[in-house]
Amino acid sequence: MKHRGILIVVSGFSGAGKGTLMKELLKTYDNYALSVSMTTRKPRPGEEEGKSYFFVDKDTFEETIAKDGLIEYASYCGNYYGTPREYVEACLDNGRDVILEIEIQGALKVKEKFPEALLLFIMPPSAEELKRRLEGRGTESEEVICQRIARAAEEAEGIENYDYIIINDKLDDCVKEMHSIISASRRNPKRNKELIADMRSELDALVKGE
Amino acid sequence: MKHRGILIVVSGFSGAGKGTLMKELLKTYDNYALSVSMTTRKPRPGEEEGKSYFFVDKDTFEETIAKDGLIEYASYCGNYYGTPREYVEACLDNGRDVILEIEIQGALKVKEKFPEALLLFIMPPSAEELKRRLEGRGTESEEVICQRIARAAEEAEGIENYDYIIINDKLDDCVKEMHSIISASRRNPKRNKELIADMRSELDALVKGE
Repeated sequence: MKHRGILIVVSGFSGAGKGTLMKELLKTYDNYALSVSMTTRKPRPGEEEGKSYFFVDKDTFEETIAKDGLIEYASYCGNYYGTPREYVEACLDNGRDVILEIEIQGALKVKEKFPEALLLFIMPPSAEELKRRLEGRGTESEEVICQRIARAAEEAEGIENYDYIIINDKLDDCVKEMHSIISASRRNPKRNKELIADMRSELDALVKGE
Repeated sequence: MKHRGILIVVSGFSGAGKGTLMKELLKTYDNYALSVSMTTRKPRPGEEEGKSYFFVDKDTFEETIAKDGLIEYASYCGNYYGTPREYVEACLDNGRDVILEIEIQGALKVKEKFPEALLLFIMPPSAEELKRRLEGRGTESEEVICQRIARAAEEAEGIENYDYIIINDKLDDCVKEMHSIISASRRNPKRNKELIADMRSELDALVKGE
């Protein structure tokens, strides 16, 4: 029997190392698929269609909304961003675990539509370490770093909505722990309705002496 | 900083192999402590005071109830059975993970008092296998086996109240999986209130430029 995959929502502070973590997770284990978002934003240099994003125009995006083709979407700085439903559903049906990397508002919308989704929040080991990592990139102005920290403080308000916190201290350990947490969640009764129903009817049959 | 241990409630069908599983878990990992129940039932041959049970008289048991010294208790076939609070709390404070092996009604009572408790339900891979294991003991009459299966059918009604299902197929794998599920649960936001509070205040301090 093929089990349906798990829908995994990953959020976390900018600078928590989500990108590297996802890359390692997908490289190390073969049960994961990364969802690709749809956006009306213009591609940046180096971004690839269908890999970084699905780049579409506003009409196409709104048509997709109209036919309920997105699991969640939001508008940000004048552009739409959303998660196309078709790819996610196809992966889940094939037993693959699909990762959506989205921020907290999107995560909560997904949880509403998919109560069995697993919500993971990635954190650095400390706020100081977060600041160090943001500064270490060397690509951002002090103002941008400050904005990101302010944004992190806002996102931190929603951590209780997540199922698990993942502390990204040492990358290798973190990848293993994340995989182990996802594997454990397969044993949640919500994800084993069929197994439970089978056990019940088998037991009932035995009681009746069938 | 020493983390408080996790209170783990283990239930499951008679014949699911809970006893062997607990024994292996405690032998393999050193973070667990097994709670010892208090009872007014008379000791059976081979049972040891303080190991199998704390054997007390009715008055002592009722005094313990009166001073809220039990996490949960129930009366069964004219005898009291309960979980003494003191030992459990002391272990948890010392960072040890305490396992209570109790049936579903007790498990639900514990969850009410300790919402952060982790409820695990042990199942055999199938009802047929359960029957085979009960028969395999060779010590029980057909009637007793039948009663146990009927009891299992009743208990199966409550599986959704548990956090995780543990399928006891191969013992070694099952012990590892159980340990891994318990470890994962350490990352639940409910069990990391301090960490989250610290991160929030550190972030706020950074935003204010302190």
